[in-house]
Amino acid sequence: MSLTTRSETHCFGGVQGFYSHRSQQLDCTMQFSVFVPEQARTEPCPVVFWLSGLTCTEENFTSKAGAQRYAAQYGLVVVAPDTSPRGDHVPDDKAYDFGKGAGFYLNATQMPWAKHYRMYDYITGELPALIFRNFPARADAQGIFGHSMGGHGALSIALKNPGVYGSLSAFAPIVAPMQCPWGEKAFSRYLGDDRETWKAYDATELVKSGARFDGNILIHQGQADNFLTEQLKPALFETVCKDVDQPLTLSLQPDYDHSYYFIASFMGQHMEHHAKALYG
Amino acid sequence: MSLTTRSETHCFGGVQGFYSHRSQQLDCTMQFSVFVPEQARTEPCPVVFWLSGLTCTEENFTSKAGAQRYAAQYGLVVVAPDTSPRGDHVPDDKAYDFGKGAGFYLNATQMPWAKHYRMYDYITGELPALIFRNFPARADAQGIFGHSMGGHGALSIALKNPGVYGSLSAFAPIVAPMQCPWGEKAFSRYLGDDRETWKAYDATELVKSGARFDGNILIHQGQADNFLTEQLKPALFETVCKDVDQPLTLSLQPDYDHSYYFIASFMGQHMEHHAKALYG
Repeated sequence: MSLTTRSETHCFGGVQGFYSHRSQQLDCTMQFSVFVPEQARTEPCPVVFWLSGLTCTEENFTSKAGAQRYAAQYGLVVVAPDTSPRGDHVPDDKAYDFGKGAGFYLNATQMPWAKHYRMYDYITGELPALIFRNFPARADAQGIFGHSMGGHGALSIALKNPGVYGSLSAFAPIVAPMQCPWGEKAFSRYLGDDRETWKAYDATELVKSGARFDGNILIHQGQADNFLTEQLKPALFETVCKDVDQPLTLSLQPDYDHSYYFIASFMGQHMEHHAKALYG
Repeated sequence: MSLTTRSETHCFGGVQGFYSHRSQQLDCTMQFSVFVPEQARTEPCPVVFWLSGLTCTEENFTSKAGAQRYAAQYGLVVVAPDTSPRGDHVPDDKAYDFGKGAGFYLNATQMPWAKHYRMYDYITGELPALIFRNFPARADAQGIFGHSMGGHGALSIALKNPGVYGSLSAFAPIVAPMQCPWGEKAFSRYLGDDRETWKAYDATELVKSGARFDGNILIHQGQADNFLTEQLKPALFETVCKDVDQPLTLSLQPDYDHSYYFIASFMGQHMEHHAKALYG
């Protein structure tokens, strides 16, 4: 489990690094970024894991979201992994919304995907273990958030792992993958035709079947988002959360779209949300 | 002089737009970005022009510098043009530091460059005219700043146009292009062998020969910048400014490099510098 440093750059008093390692879970070389704030030079800081959306790598969030400014302010380590296994030996698909860049943060059960597409185990197991071994990040103070497909990942992973994450938020998440084309396509091919097996990775179904997050979930959604009505459908999640008293703040924002300009605009509120929960 | 809107995206309460137009000065189609803050809905705001460095387009700064957050806070329009003429009919060079992406904010006099490479006239004439006709930006409150080659552009343009710019700053600027390989290569090919003609575009030479900026110039320079000693040499500019009592704050930052992570880290201080001068 050795780590290769690709670059380390001073940023807002801390260090923005890019790293690679050989992942056993995914059977390929993976890249990720870590921001370590100045505060972590003296003692470990809480850590938030960012899960990106379709087509992204670890780079999009790191260069565009403007998270470092707030991570420096609040004292948070921020980890941004890639969105799928990578490499010439990893099966792929020509579509932007399936295969590489579209791992959907699940463990595939169908061939040829099952061998490498195990992003759920990677994000919940191998990656945090690597982080806690190599960076001044507190294993007892972890948050998770993400965008679009990564919002789906953050919601479903936090709901499936009670007690692990102390804070949870999402930007324009896919809240009900079983009820939208992106999710139906990915789940049917990664998981097969039995829709019962899909429920284990669907945030709305997870809440329906009793999963809870111990804290308030913060979601921002732009109302000029092209994917809002067909793919994202935050009202589906809002309804089930209301039904079971799962605390949720769904902040609908007129005029904002699905881009990193939207994410950057509300990054400060999300980092404050995580800092308050993880330091509180 | 019509304007084509390529995209407009809500961002920090304002609008981040990308536009294109047919430039008469450059005889080609040019693209640029404009951020218009919420404050400009009611009355025009001061405007700052950002000049990017080698290899950049209008996109790098706009997506990576994190400027919108501060522009929204202070009420500043921010304009980011491309770094050279563009198009298949525009002569180019294989090198990253000459030709397209490397206009050096001057008017070329040598063929084949003289026909299109007139970035000085574009930045000081055609572009601001287009901006003031189409956006709620105050022609009486303009600032200028930039990075590396664009820092050279900002310094030399402000020094050559007293009274036009009310605020001036730069990140890791080429302060003395006549005394570094990037500048010598570009000036010799764009301007020819007569080094006397180069002095019109060299900030250090301009100050030496009597040009002044009416205000304090703010420069940030990272000390882990790979280009510091061979290309940037801020001490050359600091010395001539001291000699003639040109106000200058040269802030040397240990550990920071030449990247947008460095720029983002100090963007807040630069935007405050411009806002104070332009609103003051």
